[in-house]
Amino acid sequence: MKLTDLYMYLRGDIHQIEKEMQNTVSDAHPVLQEATLQLLQAGGKRIRPVFVLLGAKFGDYDIQKLKHIGVTLEIIHMASLVHDDVIDNSEMRRGKLTIKAKWDNRVAMYTGDYMLAKAIGTVAYFDDPAIHETMSRAIHEMVVGEIEQIRFQYQWEQNIKTYLRRIKRKTAVLIACSCEMGAQAAGVPREHQKALYRFGYQVGMAFQITDDILDFTGSEEDLGKPAGGDLLQGNVTLPALYAMKQRPELRGEIEAAFSDGRVPSQEHLARLLETINTSGGIEYAKSINDRYLKKAYQTLETLPDIPARRSLYEIAAYIGERHY
Amino acid sequence: MKLTDLYMYLRGDIHQIEKEMQNTVSDAHPVLQEATLQLLQAGGKRIRPVFVLLGAKFGDYDIQKLKHIGVTLEIIHMASLVHDDVIDNSEMRRGKLTIKAKWDNRVAMYTGDYMLAKAIGTVAYFDDPAIHETMSRAIHEMVVGEIEQIRFQYQWEQNIKTYLRRIKRKTAVLIACSCEMGAQAAGVPREHQKALYRFGYQVGMAFQITDDILDFTGSEEDLGKPAGGDLLQGNVTLPALYAMKQRPELRGEIEAAFSDGRVPSQEHLARLLETINTSGGIEYAKSINDRYLKKAYQTLETLPDIPARRSLYEIAAYIGERHY
Repeated sequence: MKLTDLYMYLRGDIHQIEKEMQNTVSDAHPVLQEATLQLLQAGGKRIRPVFVLLGAKFGDYDIQKLKHIGVTLEIIHMASLVHDDVIDNSEMRRGKLTIKAKWDNRVAMYTGDYMLAKAIGTVAYFDDPAIHETMSRAIHEMVVGEIEQIRFQYQWEQNIKTYLRRIKRKTAVLIACSCEMGAQAAGVPREHQKALYRFGYQVGMAFQITDDILDFTGSEEDLGKPAGGDLLQGNVTLPALYAMKQRPELRGEIEAAFSDGRVPSQEHLARLLETINTSGGIEYAKSINDRYLKKAYQTLETLPDIPARRSLYEIAAYIGERHY
Repeated sequence: MKLTDLYMYLRGDIHQIEKEMQNTVSDAHPVLQEATLQLLQAGGKRIRPVFVLLGAKFGDYDIQKLKHIGVTLEIIHMASLVHDDVIDNSEMRRGKLTIKAKWDNRVAMYTGDYMLAKAIGTVAYFDDPAIHETMSRAIHEMVVGEIEQIRFQYQWEQNIKTYLRRIKRKTAVLIACSCEMGAQAAGVPREHQKALYRFGYQVGMAFQITDDILDFTGSEEDLGKPAGGDLLQGNVTLPALYAMKQRPELRGEIEAAFSDGRVPSQEHLARLLETINTSGGIEYAKSINDRYLKKAYQTLETLPDIPARRSLYEIAAYIGERHY
């Protein structure tokens, strides 16, 4: 069972969104077009467009309108990936060279800018200022989340609240806004729009926490990259935060391993990961994850009982059951 | 006589825009706030807000509405400067350390992203989709212009059409959109909006060509940096293009001076600049500049004869009379 199997019946509409994305970037400058097409063709779960469509099912569903919302959100997401790769100095993404690796940081920066411009251009299709306001909020929070990630990089002493705020901004708000914007475009009653936003936020938090857990427990084969990448890049996530809180001497060891710009050896990293995994960090992160998912299920209960609600439930449950 | 003296009577309204800009970024994350405040306080001619206000004078002028348009355009402009500094690896701007120099490229990249998000958020104030469409077009063209600038860097053999298209996108469109968006927000008749857009485009072209000429002829004192910076950075502008067309052996010499990633010595650069200056490149660029200004004056003739038209005329004339 794959995540995409859960929304098989949306395949036709997702395909329309894919086509519209290609249209959207087809006027691009050759370099930009090649760069953005590579991003589009790399695929992905298209989870944000799926949330747009499912949010809209609670109102007046019209794919001709909704596809523009789906394109907007997926393009914003891709823009953030391109800029992330510049920040993280990543050479590979989904088994392909990143834009910054294939061209350079400058092209990657402007490809991201171009995609943001395209997202703005796409949403101009709508008259409703509330939709513009939601998009603006989504981009704003995402950017602030990225800045916070830079600011807290290699800061081994930070509290869990800081972490939660950061992943909210970096990941959860965009998913929440996907649910909300789909609902806005479909004229869903405001009260249900709010519930959909809340659901998106809760699922988005679970989604990111799961990702952060997998970075400690996943095999290189599953992850497509070695485990421990977050720690190596100074990205301090929930399992490590909890483990360091439990064992202050572990924090000392990590600080020492990274002091003066050093990087731990592979063996040393493996030992650190092992300590984190056996210090209750994973269990703790899972428990927080479960808490968000439980809230997400509760939020769904406040929405009308239509098939889309079942799909949202299943997607949330899938995220909760990803193998750690 | 300074440029700002020409729009002294707008000072109060420009001040309101300045204040609104500070409000707009006041919710920023500390790093972002410091970075953006530094940009705001560095000042500048605020020429884009001035064009917004003057464009609006042809309609229903309301500074409470217009200030949001002015903020949007100035912030987009500043975002482009921050990203430019990353691309050009610039350490100083207007006598201050750039964001990328004071922090790093990553902070600069996200500061630019943040400002774009803020611009989008500010324009969300307006219901009119035409305003959103104009802003989206402005950002889009600017980004494509930047990409083209990178693409044609150190390409010594390119034609003048390519250059003109690049500066149109990089500079002129944003000024054109400033005039247009001010007019849109003030409900100026569409026909006059179009004329204002055209005027902004023509003045914007003259503005950039003048800048490009000054980079060859200006003193270090006037420019705040040594002359020849464009050539050194591989930014091929009109005087050099024309000179190389007139003297193919000059192109050979420039190509050789920059081959294999080398950079000419100061003496060599001075010699190259001298050759360009004496090959008719400056006169040619001035003649193109004059042609755009003349068109700009003609465009103004199609607009109602109100005091704002006189100001637009004076600003255009000032740009034409900047000392080369």
